[in-house]
Amino acid sequence: MTRTAIIAGAGGLPAAVMAAMAERPFVAALEGFAPAGLEPDLRFRVERLVPFLRALEDEGVTRVCFAGAVQRPRLDPALFDPDTAGMVPRLLAAMGQGDDATLREVLAIFEEAGFALVGVQEIAPALVPGAGLLCGAVTDRDRADAARAAVIVGALGRVDVGQGAVVQQGLCLAVEALPGTDAMLAGVAAIPPGLRPAGAKGLFYKAPKPGQDRRIDLPALGVETLRRVAAAGLGGIVWEAGGVICLDLSAMVAEAEAAGLFLWARKP
Amino acid sequence: MTRTAIIAGAGGLPAAVMAAMAERPFVAALEGFAPAGLEPDLRFRVERLVPFLRALEDEGVTRVCFAGAVQRPRLDPALFDPDTAGMVPRLLAAMGQGDDATLREVLAIFEEAGFALVGVQEIAPALVPGAGLLCGAVTDRDRADAARAAVIVGALGRVDVGQGAVVQQGLCLAVEALPGTDAMLAGVAAIPPGLRPAGAKGLFYKAPKPGQDRRIDLPALGVETLRRVAAAGLGGIVWEAGGVICLDLSAMVAEAEAAGLFLWARKP
Repeated sequence: MTRTAIIAGAGGLPAAVMAAMAERPFVAALEGFAPAGLEPDLRFRVERLVPFLRALEDEGVTRVCFAGAVQRPRLDPALFDPDTAGMVPRLLAAMGQGDDATLREVLAIFEEAGFALVGVQEIAPALVPGAGLLCGAVTDRDRADAARAAVIVGALGRVDVGQGAVVQQGLCLAVEALPGTDAMLAGVAAIPPGLRPAGAKGLFYKAPKPGQDRRIDLPALGVETLRRVAAAGLGGIVWEAGGVICLDLSAMVAEAEAAGLFLWARKP
Repeated sequence: MTRTAIIAGAGGLPAAVMAAMAERPFVAALEGFAPAGLEPDLRFRVERLVPFLRALEDEGVTRVCFAGAVQRPRLDPALFDPDTAGMVPRLLAAMGQGDDATLREVLAIFEEAGFALVGVQEIAPALVPGAGLLCGAVTDRDRADAARAAVIVGALGRVDVGQGAVVQQGLCLAVEALPGTDAMLAGVAAIPPGLRPAGAKGLFYKAPKPGQDRRIDLPALGVETLRRVAAAGLGGIVWEAGGVICLDLSAMVAEAEAAGLFLWARKP
């Protein structure tokens, strides 16, 4: 028998995934990153990872899906149990190599404990749109900007930096790093007008890192992203079709249409 | 006979280069980007580039050195002379491909007009420090962060984005794009404290783009950079030895020592 657990971080994604599933999953949430609109069955801490894995097993969980935003949690040395403490060197070594390495290590720990890992696109495919222009219109200039942004995000991803960039008329206005999409778009909104070209407004592009494990950490977009894109004076959002989660696609489309922005799931 | 012209942009670099030269150069400044502490012999506009090249020739100039900050100027269609107007398609095509392509094109235009191009390091070598730790101390953690930052900046440079990045304990906090170093360091200063790891403070790394023409657009550092690095809570600055201009090195060293920051010209 298969029982799925959602390992939930903050934001609306865990509830959206749960809503898209036929059977009710078990929901475990990382302490300090409460999911929105959802009461977790269990809360856990990284310092007590091994007891948490045993608790999942006791619940009959056989596969897990990571969903929601987690920033690297601060660790309290006093809270470690002996088994988890033994994993600290391994976790710290991975953390020193960046977010991708850390996620790979966490994934390995869950798999070694006997759990199958599944991606959001597998248990909630409606949240990950396939290729298509969802609203608005794109020009050749936008297509060229999207192509350039895809090259930039690919180069960044290969060195384990961000999953997004902003390009306007061939110019890279911003690139995503640790502070994330919202901080990047706020930075773009703050660029002095004289520094940006007139005419075509540019776009925000989002894609998974090349070669990343697509069972975890797929980038996500939502209505909030769209508002920040509009505030940054951009023309729309482009993302890699099949590789990005849209949290509330119908609301995004409605709001993009009202704001005159394009939404384009671009074939990689 | 050799006569050198400095093609000056904004900031203190043109005056610093001039001070380091045995013979007084001819100084031409791009309209709207006045150099500091220096009265140009001639001002010019991009819209009248061809007449400007002829004026340089009339002055007996045989080689030119680009020095100082220039952002892509707005072009006024009414000001073009016919010869320069003929170059517009060529310039616009290059601008659409990014700053590197634009600089390559400008360089080609000067060379086609018969001028030799020389880098700052050639006519003012004292401004481009060779390898060495100039002040402070670096730990193994800093060395690892510098190595990671060099990989990130290399990857970015290959897709013609920035020349700098901030890395702390393996995490990429920021990456330079169109808005430049100051905007990037302001972004780092604004990162909520909870998002950055405790302990080793991280560093700002600067290097030319891989394969860039080192006769133009070498990245530059100065006392102002150092203050912004301190304000961003970083431990120091690392740069590629031989590839970065230090505008006021003795002032930088004095201020870094007072602030407890390291300055390290790292062998590439």
